Amino acid sequence: MSQDPLVIFTPSGKRGRFPAGTPILTAARKLGVDLDSVCGGRGICSKCQIAPSYGDFPKHGVTVREDALSEWNAVEARYDRVRGLKTGRRLGCQATVQGDVVIDVPSESQVHRQVVRKAASARPIIMDPATRLVFVEVDEPDMHEPSGDLERLRKALSAQWQIEDVSAGLPILKKLQPALRKGKWQVTVALYMGQGGEGSRILDIWPGLHESGIYGLAIDLGSTTIAAHLCDLSDGHVLASSGLMNPQIRFGEDLMSRVSYAMMNPGGDVEMTTAVRDAINTLASEIAEEGGIDPRLIVETVFVCNPVMHHLLLGIDPVELGQAPFALATSSSMTLPAVALDLTAINPEAQVYILPCIAGHVGADAAAVALSEEPNLSEDLVLVVDVGTNAEILLGNKHKVLACSSPTGPAFEGAQISSGQRAAPGAIERIEINPETKEPRFRIIGCDLWSDDPGFAEASAATGVTGICGSGIIEAVAEMRMAGVLDPSGLIGSAEQVGTPRCEPEGRTHAYLIHDGSADGGPRITVTQGDIRAIQLAKSALYAGARLLMDEMGVDTVDRVTLAGAFGAHISPKHAMVLGMIPDAPLDKVTSAGNAAGHGARIALCSRAARSRIEQVVGQIHKVETAVEPKFQEHFVNASAIPNSVEPFPILSSVVPLPDVNYGASGGGGEGGRRRRRRG
Amino acid sequence: MSQDPLVIFTPSGKRGRFPAGTPILTAARKLGVDLDSVCGGRGICSKCQIAPSYGDFPKHGVTVREDALSEWNAVEARYDRVRGLKTGRRLGCQATVQGDVVIDVPSESQVHRQVVRKAASARPIIMDPATRLVFVEVDEPDMHEPSGDLERLRKALSAQWQIEDVSAGLPILKKLQPALRKGKWQVTVALYMGQGGEGSRILDIWPGLHESGIYGLAIDLGSTTIAAHLCDLSDGHVLASSGLMNPQIRFGEDLMSRVSYAMMNPGGDVEMTTAVRDAINTLASEIAEEGGIDPRLIVETVFVCNPVMHHLLLGIDPVELGQAPFALATSSSMTLPAVALDLTAINPEAQVYILPCIAGHVGADAAAVALSEEPNLSEDLVLVVDVGTNAEILLGNKHKVLACSSPTGPAFEGAQISSGQRAAPGAIERIEINPETKEPRFRIIGCDLWSDDPGFAEASAATGVTGICGSGIIEAVAEMRMAGVLDPSGLIGSAEQVGTPRCEPEGRTHAYLIHDGSADGGPRITVTQGDIRAIQLAKSALYAGARLLMDEMGVDTVDRVTLAGAFGAHISPKHAMVLGMIPDAPLDKVTSAGNAAGHGARIALCSRAARSRIEQVVGQIHKVETAVEPKFQEHFVNASAIPNSVEPFPILSSVVPLPDVNYGASGGGGEGGRRRRRRG
Repeated sequence: MSQDPLVIFTPSGKRGRFPAGTPILTAARKLGVDLDSVCGGRGICSKCQIAPSYGDFPKHGVTVREDALSEWNAVEARYDRVRGLKTGRRLGCQATVQGDVVIDVPSESQVHRQVVRKAASARPIIMDPATRLVFVEVDEPDMHEPSGDLERLRKALSAQWQIEDVSAGLPILKKLQPALRKGKWQVTVALYMGQGGEGSRILDIWPGLHESGIYGLAIDLGSTTIAAHLCDLSDGHVLASSGLMNPQIRFGEDLMSRVSYAMMNPGGDVEMTTAVRDAINTLASEIAEEGGIDPRLIVETVFVCNPVMHHLLLGIDPVELGQAPFALATSSSMTLPAVALDLTAINPEAQVYILPCIAGHVGADAAAVALSEEPNLSEDLVLVVDVGTNAEILLGNKHKVLACSSPTGPAFEGAQISSGQRAAPGAIERIEINPETKEPRFRIIGCDLWSDDPGFAEASAATGVTGICGSGIIEAVAEMRMAGVLDPSGLIGSAEQVGTPRCEPEGRTHAYLIHDGSADGGPRITVTQGDIRAIQLAKSALYAGARLLMDEMGVDTVDRVTLAGAFGAHISPKHAMVLGMIPDAPLDKVTSAGNAAGHGARIALCSRAARSRIEQVVGQIHKVETAVEPKFQEHFVNASAIPNSVEPFPILSSVVPLPDVNYGASGGGGEGGRRRRRRG
Repeated sequence: MSQDPLVIFTPSGKRGRFPAGTPILTAARKLGVDLDSVCGGRGICSKCQIAPSYGDFPKHGVTVREDALSEWNAVEARYDRVRGLKTGRRLGCQATVQGDVVIDVPSESQVHRQVVRKAASARPIIMDPATRLVFVEVDEPDMHEPSGDLERLRKALSAQWQIEDVSAGLPILKKLQPALRKGKWQVTVALYMGQGGEGSRILDIWPGLHESGIYGLAIDLGSTTIAAHLCDLSDGHVLASSGLMNPQIRFGEDLMSRVSYAMMNPGGDVEMTTAVRDAINTLASEIAEEGGIDPRLIVETVFVCNPVMHHLLLGIDPVELGQAPFALATSSSMTLPAVALDLTAINPEAQVYILPCIAGHVGADAAAVALSEEPNLSEDLVLVVDVGTNAEILLGNKHKVLACSSPTGPAFEGAQISSGQRAAPGAIERIEINPETKEPRFRIIGCDLWSDDPGFAEASAATGVTGICGSGIIEAVAEMRMAGVLDPSGLIGSAEQVGTPRCEPEGRTHAYLIHDGSADGGPRITVTQGDIRAIQLAKSALYAGARLLMDEMGVDTVDRVTLAGAFGAHISPKHAMVLGMIPDAPLDKVTSAGNAAGHGARIALCSRAARSRIEQVVGQIHKVETAVEPKFQEHFVNASAIPNSVEPFPILSSVVPLPDVNYGASGGGGEGGRRRRRRG
């Protein structure tokens, strides 16, 4: 008595016997193999492509004969003719089992495919989006068995996809009848499944098979910069990344000045809410154009932001966040329709997910950093510093995670810096100063050459050299210190003291000239004494926050440091440490993670499981409040010098020479700097 | 060993023993006795008033001593001083058990109190509204245990009311923090519970105890008239009833002409949707003012309407309802936020419930009539006729219910009638014509006197006599027939033929003068031959629909007839039968139910159980499609005479004399009428 043929799937290793004639897609479904299909096996969507293997497989104990699958059929031939099918590929819904066979499911045919992230240490994202496309055939109406078109669509979703409890809003009801008739009772719906349990919602509907995909936005809504990734919800790949300045800057550079604006001006919170929502609409339109998609195909948006931005986005007056006990209106994650946030540029039924906040000063952005960097899973003690106008700082390991935020101000994002600008083509992002000649060389965004490379002038002509972005100013100040342009207290020496005419007088202090474009009508780019002071204030706040968490954890050193920053800013670990932004640590243990908050938003966009995970994790993070902690002030005041006033930074000093110079009349410069910092 | 005191509640009869000192409210809750409380036993809301009885109760086997309850306490004394407590009443949360006691829960202290309806046959509504008020004390925020205000409110609702899974929209999050602080961490929330299972949603929040109540609108959205009841959601009582003309009339008098308008004019459906939504906002504002409440206290709205109005309200193009197979976009009941329908005049978080539709031509209004009149529970065979521009007709008993709709046109609502108007002060609603003198007497809405009573001129001076409303025109035509002004074919006789100068020539036909107000600058009110034809068309359609259902049921007679009509129209059973609107039946078996669709809407507003019930029942109603049924045309054509061409109406004839007159040249008038009907 012969047995049914054996079907073995790789890479899962799942196997089972099926009667000859069973489609591979059917076998996969019965075994729970992760094989995608939008059209449900009708040979339309081509998502279920599989790759059969032939020959001897001693490992699996089978021999696969040439005729193990049914012959290439008309549907496959037509698909290959019209769209092209890769060599060796079959459509899983068309090819049927005829004998023992080994079937590979390529990663692009898996629903829960892995998205590999850039950073080597980062875990891949397993695709598990809240919204997916489903193709369905609906019964035609029958006057004698009256039922609504929606009710018959529901019935079809239940019968063909086992999806129950489906709801639809008015915009969908408006489109439903024309779509069904135009598609000859075949439609594709975008189904939002949520995090499970609450039923599904139809976000959009198209006649026939919808082949233009659906997309999501992951938005890191910072105080200074709004950064977004546009992702394909089927495979998580980023079509475009874009950013713009937060227009709320005109109401106040930092968060507390925006809270003050809301307190002092009736309706001020509404003004700020309108401004940020308008900006997000602009950003969504721009990024959709950049990604070459219709913005109405954006059906999901994930936001991460600090608590003040969180409230201003939601239209909640942030006044309570300006005073102890810093009570949030709500700290939970939120799922709401995009129209509730006036996000009219995207799909009218789009859903928004906002990550949970950790506390009144530690927001959804910190939660997103935790989701991206996962300090809670770390074996060693990791310090994660997300540099922005408000820095989010996490310290912990798998046993315990602490979090705080620190009001660094916008200097690290290039704002409040005389030649500062946001990260955009033309901005200086890398800089080196020769310690002998004190001459600088630099690179700008959008050009691969250094400024002293032959051909730089031509290569950079399109944008010119326009200013310094956040990562550029960090490198500039650190390089100035390493080259002896700056003394440990932060004073810039005069041309005579330093030995270069680039140290120009500026009022009673000096400025260091990086680039003079004035001959061509461009800007003169300098780092002024005021810029140095702004950076000193910012880095002291950052360091003090990290130090406070170390105190709370009862440690003097950390095993490793992860630097993360706003969109586009790639902070150099060495320069960050020379500045004293972070505690002393071996340089090879300091890594840059890019925009961790933005990555966290993207992970939550692609994965419902990640949403559930971070909702759990935030409940376990212990929050430290910097605003009322006297030791924070003490650390802040003591951290003004470069790299630091109190800590010797022995690890750093052993690898980076730091000149012992002093440009103050009698060390008074340092004192002056300290007094100014106190007022700050 | 002494037992704990026995507490017996009436009228429920529930009883139990409780330790001395137990508050009566606590005892009631433990026993599941229906005793209201908004404040949760804090002595604030006074909803838990109870009436203890003293003396011997052999029936219950107890003797209640004077000291069976604790003494009147300071909270009760203060409440009595400030608000007044009825004699014999105590506050259930303050009075504690001291000995055996019999406690009566008066109906106004019951959550699920009964609301008695006007019609003698109607079952009372058991209050079970989807939204209720809950008073709650919330923990203050603690910086060291950070949580959002919403999260602490949720915790309090769980601990104090066992209500879990509470959500809140952005308008609530915006109000939450100020309300909590103003109320010193005590707030009242309006909680929408839905039909169960889906969690609760906060619709509004007020500092401290909210004492102004919450309200709902029950709206019967007819083709010609929009009628609304404003109900108190705590006890179901109607604060105000109001109506206005459907502004869509300018796009088409009847439903099919509105569907045509949408088909012929791009954007025509949107115009009509905007018009009806604007009208509902106007109506909501007016009815709130009439009821003396803030319209933002309206937190729920229930709609009943025919399928075309249903789609136009929802913003769905009704084009599919204009052609077979008459497919609805959706037939299920709907729950959606009022803002989705642009209902901005009421609470911004208000919820809308729309009853399910039965089929493409038999809508949520028919479902509401079924909910109000409950033919599905009837022992005998009942015909329910809801008279409107589109008539809803139900025939059935507890074994089977059939339904259809019939396009009667707006004549029964006073439209397309030369002197017609909607039911409003000044409109003739009752009329009698003396069969000897052919002189009429009438009554107008807003005046209790008949027109020939002394003092009528003065009593009616405020409005004057302005026109004839729907019930008035029915009585006028029937009275004209009974007085011999009209022959069976529907022709009005000349002055000579009838014997009164009130029969005036009008073109080639005649009109009957009811009232001449021209001397005082008022209108001349006549019934023209055209009016008669309009009423004949309408009543033939109505009769044909009823007759079709009787064919389908296989019966020639019905046991009883319930006449229902649009807001304010009280149709006289006798006159309806003389007209031949309904099949012949004993007059005492024909009753008027007022606005049954509106009543159904009110029932659904007050009771979640009723919503679930009608959702079940509509699935069991068998729908008959008049539009494609040849027998409907046949019945329609044959029903043109008054009372009828085919049926002898023996029961009617035995009690109402109908003169045997003939005003046609050779019976041609009747034929002409028949041809015109065919074109209609």
